[in-house]
Amino acid sequence: MSAVIGDPVTAIDSPALVVDLDAMERNLATMAAYARDRAVRLRPHAKTHKSAWIARRQMEHGAVGVCVQKTSEAEALADQGVSDLYISNEVIDPAKLARVAALAARVRLAIAVDSAQGVERLAAAMRATRAAIDVFVEIDVGHGRCGVAPADAADLARRIRDAGLRFAGLQAYHGRAQHLRGVEERSGAIEAAGAAVRAARAALDAQRIECALVTGAGSGSFVLEAASGLWGELQVGSYVFMDRDYADNESMPGAPRFDHALFVKSQVMSRHADRAVVDAGHKSHAIDSGLPRVWGRDDLEFANGGDEHGILRANRPGAPLPALGETVWLVPGHCDPTVNLHDTMVGVRGGLEQGVVERLIRVDARGALS
Amino acid sequence: MSAVIGDPVTAIDSPALVVDLDAMERNLATMAAYARDRAVRLRPHAKTHKSAWIARRQMEHGAVGVCVQKTSEAEALADQGVSDLYISNEVIDPAKLARVAALAARVRLAIAVDSAQGVERLAAAMRATRAAIDVFVEIDVGHGRCGVAPADAADLARRIRDAGLRFAGLQAYHGRAQHLRGVEERSGAIEAAGAAVRAARAALDAQRIECALVTGAGSGSFVLEAASGLWGELQVGSYVFMDRDYADNESMPGAPRFDHALFVKSQVMSRHADRAVVDAGHKSHAIDSGLPRVWGRDDLEFANGGDEHGILRANRPGAPLPALGETVWLVPGHCDPTVNLHDTMVGVRGGLEQGVVERLIRVDARGALS
Repeated sequence: MSAVIGDPVTAIDSPALVVDLDAMERNLATMAAYARDRAVRLRPHAKTHKSAWIARRQMEHGAVGVCVQKTSEAEALADQGVSDLYISNEVIDPAKLARVAALAARVRLAIAVDSAQGVERLAAAMRATRAAIDVFVEIDVGHGRCGVAPADAADLARRIRDAGLRFAGLQAYHGRAQHLRGVEERSGAIEAAGAAVRAARAALDAQRIECALVTGAGSGSFVLEAASGLWGELQVGSYVFMDRDYADNESMPGAPRFDHALFVKSQVMSRHADRAVVDAGHKSHAIDSGLPRVWGRDDLEFANGGDEHGILRANRPGAPLPALGETVWLVPGHCDPTVNLHDTMVGVRGGLEQGVVERLIRVDARGALS
Repeated sequence: MSAVIGDPVTAIDSPALVVDLDAMERNLATMAAYARDRAVRLRPHAKTHKSAWIARRQMEHGAVGVCVQKTSEAEALADQGVSDLYISNEVIDPAKLARVAALAARVRLAIAVDSAQGVERLAAAMRATRAAIDVFVEIDVGHGRCGVAPADAADLARRIRDAGLRFAGLQAYHGRAQHLRGVEERSGAIEAAGAAVRAARAALDAQRIECALVTGAGSGSFVLEAASGLWGELQVGSYVFMDRDYADNESMPGAPRFDHALFVKSQVMSRHADRAVVDAGHKSHAIDSGLPRVWGRDDLEFANGGDEHGILRANRPGAPLPALGETVWLVPGHCDPTVNLHDTMVGVRGGLEQGVVERLIRVDARGALS
């Protein structure tokens, strides 16, 4: 175990994934207030934290439930008492759909579809239960991954109804837009996404199919979706922790401010004249969105040292390297897959220097991929 | 659980990490024969598989023990009966060194050092036990990460002895050399590493300190280290599974052939005219060494679809895309951090098409980072 409740931060074994609880709670409150003020529903994405405790904290702040990406993720959170889950992704395997149906009998559940075959198989699985499920049609709003063309949304919605399932609305999420650096680029992407939503709604209207809800948006763009009046529910995930990549985005006008709340505690375990080597590599933090940043030390550059090491060098002449044994705090490039590397997050109260371990946060759905 | 023993491969839930046991056993036998023929010791690196069962299989094939990178990794394997472990890395934290000392009382243990402070702290920790530990001096042979300069090896070896510890030899591992594509580049890097080893040995000789063993080498270069006559022990890891990145290397003359034995089973869960989307993203496979390759389908290209998705497109005009629901086998770019994403590997006998689940291989040291 990497930490003991009541211990000072200094006693946390490294590397460890540490949550600044004060910062996290500010983030939870800020996003909740934002959604409340705009009268949009908040259904945060639990793929970020994979933790039932954080999901419950979000619901205490007014979230209607949480999203997940995978069936096993939904199962893991349901097992820990999360009662309202939306699998914002497609499931096509009949054996897995049988699990979805079984889960629908235990919690309030929703799922996305983007194919006629997906609807048929889901309907077949649901017929084995007396439970209900909300079904969203995913439309491709510009990401180029899953989702039907907007014009095809109505056909799929009709199939959902014809199969005896409940058509709940549109899944309209633009993942890539979150990471477009400039405000203008991001605005353009979400504007195009909005046009896709309008086109899908028009197709639904033409067939007199009511669209009760459009759900989507992420931490990099939700201000735009909320302002559009098209989206009724926000699926923001990363705002809970924030990561280096979101911090690198140009800030959206009117966007609330979120604080870094997720850190990797590392230690210098090898020291040389030109570099300090820490005990955290990319088995400790995901590097798909780039390398971590050294917290509080803009004069240090983190270089990839492989699976188990990170290499710190001075950015500026004369910047002092940390000493052998010294603690170095890293801000991961991307929080979601970083959390997925750890079984436990160490929740700290009172800051990274003087703080105390208040809680061990289990990553309940760690490795829940299927 | 992603698989049941006795089930056909087709029944394995996706995504899942699957080991082709036939291929793995060929790899184990091939490397064991190679080391035996060259009369070098084999101490495979368990950071690749993190599994006590595979470590024991390697020892049954003549390995003297295994390497690990982290204290907690050593503890996890020792807990599962692996009795000879070398932490081929530095540990500087006193609390962690106390765990190292406790572990030395349970198994045959070795560790690397690269600083006087590291030696002092290790000695202090070991004084609390009556156990012994083998201490290797790590020298930097060109990687530019941990390790002292060759000329400083003798001073550190003397400190080890003066502190009442056992100097066991030199740790000389060139991680980056494994991934240099061309034979000439790799040969040049290992030649330079050999020169560093010779320099360190000369420094030891000058102080009349015996160097019993030089240990190092990885799956991309071990033929060179073995041929040099300088290295007495090989720390190869990836040969067990192989990955896309090693397969991309130009093959070393005289090198034995290893087969891909590690795969991610994925499934198409969204299908479009221009792309098939599978349910495996970089929460299922590490992408630090690039994206996975689609096994048996050179005409398909895997594009990054984010944490939970992969996007397949045709490489050549007219290449058929897999259908909705179809299984797609992926060869991960880098096996070590891919294994670390999974709690279990599904061991299959009889191939990926007709095979049967023979064994669930627990990744005992998954997430053992500290």
